[in-house]
Amino acid sequence: MLKSRHLLGIADLEPDEITLILDTAEAMTEIAARPIKKVPTLRGRTVVNLFFEPSTRTRMSFEVAEKRLSADTLSIAVAQSSVTKGETLLDTVRNLEAMAPDMIVMRHASSGAPHLLARLCRSAIINAGDGMHEHPTQALLDAFTIREHKKRLDGLKVAIVGDLLHSRVLRSNVLLLNRMGAEVWACAPPTLMPTELSRFGVRPTTSIDEAIADADVIMMLRIQHERMCGHFIPSTREYFTLFGLTPERVRRAKPDVIIMHPGPMNRGVEIDSDVADGPFSVILEQVTNGVAVRMAVLYLLAGQEAATD
Amino acid sequence: MLKSRHLLGIADLEPDEITLILDTAEAMTEIAARPIKKVPTLRGRTVVNLFFEPSTRTRMSFEVAEKRLSADTLSIAVAQSSVTKGETLLDTVRNLEAMAPDMIVMRHASSGAPHLLARLCRSAIINAGDGMHEHPTQALLDAFTIREHKKRLDGLKVAIVGDLLHSRVLRSNVLLLNRMGAEVWACAPPTLMPTELSRFGVRPTTSIDEAIADADVIMMLRIQHERMCGHFIPSTREYFTLFGLTPERVRRAKPDVIIMHPGPMNRGVEIDSDVADGPFSVILEQVTNGVAVRMAVLYLLAGQEAATD
Amino acid sequence: MLKSRHLLGIADLEPDEITLILDTAEAMTEIAARPIKKVPTLRGRTVVNLFFEPSTRTRMSFEVAEKRLSADTLSIAVAQSSVTKGETLLDTVRNLEAMAPDMIVMRHASSGAPHLLARLCRSAIINAGDGMHEHPTQALLDAFTIREHKKRLDGLKVAIVGDLLHSRVLRSNVLLLNRMGAEVWACAPPTLMPTELSRFGVRPTTSIDEAIADADVIMMLRIQHERMCGHFIPSTREYFTLFGLTPERVRRAKPDVIIMHPGPMNRGVEIDSDVADGPFSVILEQVTNGVAVRMAVLYLLAGQEAATD
Repeated sequence: MLKSRHLLGIADLEPDEITLILDTAEAMTEIAARPIKKVPTLRGRTVVNLFFEPSTRTRMSFEVAEKRLSADTLSIAVAQSSVTKGETLLDTVRNLEAMAPDMIVMRHASSGAPHLLARLCRSAIINAGDGMHEHPTQALLDAFTIREHKKRLDGLKVAIVGDLLHSRVLRSNVLLLNRMGAEVWACAPPTLMPTELSRFGVRPTTSIDEAIADADVIMMLRIQHERMCGHFIPSTREYFTLFGLTPERVRRAKPDVIIMHPGPMNRGVEIDSDVADGPFSVILEQVTNGVAVRMAVLYLLAGQEAATD
Repeated sequence: MLKSRHLLGIADLEPDEITLILDTAEAMTEIAARPIKKVPTLRGRTVVNLFFEPSTRTRMSFEVAEKRLSADTLSIAVAQSSVTKGETLLDTVRNLEAMAPDMIVMRHASSGAPHLLARLCRSAIINAGDGMHEHPTQALLDAFTIREHKKRLDGLKVAIVGDLLHSRVLRSNVLLLNRMGAEVWACAPPTLMPTELSRFGVRPTTSIDEAIADADVIMMLRIQHERMCGHFIPSTREYFTLFGLTPERVRRAKPDVIIMHPGPMNRGVEIDSDVADGPFSVILEQVTNGVAVRMAVLYLLAGQEAATD
Repeated sequence: MLKSRHLLGIADLEPDEITLILDTAEAMTEIAARPIKKVPTLRGRTVVNLFFEPSTRTRMSFEVAEKRLSADTLSIAVAQSSVTKGETLLDTVRNLEAMAPDMIVMRHASSGAPHLLARLCRSAIINAGDGMHEHPTQALLDAFTIREHKKRLDGLKVAIVGDLLHSRVLRSNVLLLNRMGAEVWACAPPTLMPTELSRFGVRPTTSIDEAIADADVIMMLRIQHERMCGHFIPSTREYFTLFGLTPERVRRAKPDVIIMHPGPMNRGVEIDSDVADGPFSVILEQVTNGVAVRMAVLYLLAGQEAATD
């Protein structure tokens, strides 16, 4: 059983909790294989998806997971919300929870927003990405995908390449992979490299070739358009030349390497199209596994709540 | 049973109909107390939420109410709608009802829009706020909340303070409270005070201290940002000094006063944060009760419809 | 049974497939006549509505159809989607289908977009309008409405009047009506008349009087605002004078003519209000039938999929 009523970040999870989530997700993948992909587990429960930042894929993944568990879902995008009327975030969420939802899945541009709310509100909160801080379900689905292919996490060499500076995906993955015994290499141009990465047990390098040499797993991170063109990167062409994942570079990794990307991809910027669609790519499996992992988290937290009642 | 197929405004409701809705809402609150907050009452019924003005809280409240009754819900926000293609409001609604929804919950910036549609369309229409005219479910949930605490409505002194000029909440509340025997005091700066308020059985005053002296209920209305800063109010600071509800002012009311606000609140403008979160505040109860009252309205109108069939 | 797993356009349908869809829709209209308008046919199936162009009525119609068949629905409007993050259309759709929806209903501004995806993706795709190319469910609901009134399609004179140049509704209707033996006349000002229309078995004319003389069916197409005022049409007033459907003009058609419009209408531009609301108008029946036709398509394609499994 999970210790917390919330899923705020990987930082709060013990290794056995991570394993529990991954094992539960394993069971959930069986539901997705059925013609009728639906179980009554969360029937009559209400889950609110509260997105203060736009996101199709994460929101869709949660919605699909919620509906497969028969929950009632309500989705709120920030542009339509009362937040624009000058209400505080806390008032917005307190109002929502006065309608007695069972869980709130939230994404917010401010690091720590879900943690603040978890302290002040009664509802179970699932962090679907907070600023540059954490994105725990992404790290969990990444770990699930790695485990599916490698049957283990510990002892693996995982290379994470791309915009490390602005990435909550990096942080959650580093926390999870370290905790589970993997060796994480992180590669970025100096302008996109956080300081003190090595304090977190990560091996930083500005050489993609070093990062991916003999890697079991290569995880490419998205280069965001607003970072490109002069501010952090001279040009997308130069970025691709220096840091893009090409078929040639993939050959430096282990022969059974798997290649991951949290999406959305910039083909021809951080990843070559042939690699994205090639035999080592598990990028679409990540999306599929995302639904199973989110079903597992919703299921475990709902059980948690029942236990508290 | 309700006389009309629609809920357009408090103006159309007899006192016994108001009591019926409040009593039904009482029963609905029991559903919200269950772990599985869902009954099959409206299973297979379709409710369209047609919002020509943005609103998170009212739309959410209706959606939660509809889902707890097992209705299928469809929500349309105006920005995505054909209205922008130059179609008339009537054509938009006639098209919707050609798809045979059972009920249409609508919010519109024009006073009287739902009344026009109710005359011209077949569907049952629930007014979720029309211009500066009525917001009947808000007044009903306010009355429900007052009755929960005071066990009655008649004979109570209710002070309504804030932007009276632009408020459909004021109008619906005055109609309901008068009809049920409460004494309504209304307080605003002269620039936000409607003329002829006394014709509606309301006691107008520009002194908040007079309004809330010995009040059983204080209802603070939102000051909208667009009204502030020079047009109707010199500054938010001055407004707070003259009309803001502070702990000192609350002491002038009855010792068991309850403090209400339809939200979203401007803390530090119309209400002090300590009052909003203080022991007399029932602001979040209003939100909770809103779901129950809307369930009651949907249930009663659906029964109405069945009777007409 | 339908031959394809997809519904991409009328161009792919044999006459017996069209008849099958219309006959199935006939059965579906009975569901809409019940107080509980819901059958469990698609229970546990997920349908994604992926709209890259805004559309209230088509999206609503599909959503209602999906919910009447008990499917789980997810709707994505383009403005909130990752497409804005620079991802390719193909990646967006591949990501969606990695979540294993059963069907994707899509609208896109580019002609052929759904056809491309159908070749590259596993999901069943329903074209809800692609650029100026096809809008097959619109043509099917139009045919259904005609057949309801005339008991046949072959041998009828159908006049289609309006912006022929930019209309996917025209193209799908011409393909369907030709295939089923109707005689199609098409009328527009020269600036809105496609070349080579006659190659498609259509009789082009710039005279509305010629087009509607002895017509069994008049189908008025919407004049889009952006086409008006100087570019294609001198003024909306002049357009109405030369091409607007007035009560006088209706008298030139058969005495039992039916008048159709795919909506949204510009009253006083392409159609007189008295005609739109008059005894020959079946415009709202089209909307009602749209739900039944879409239920039929969803039902037949879902069966298709089950057969493939």
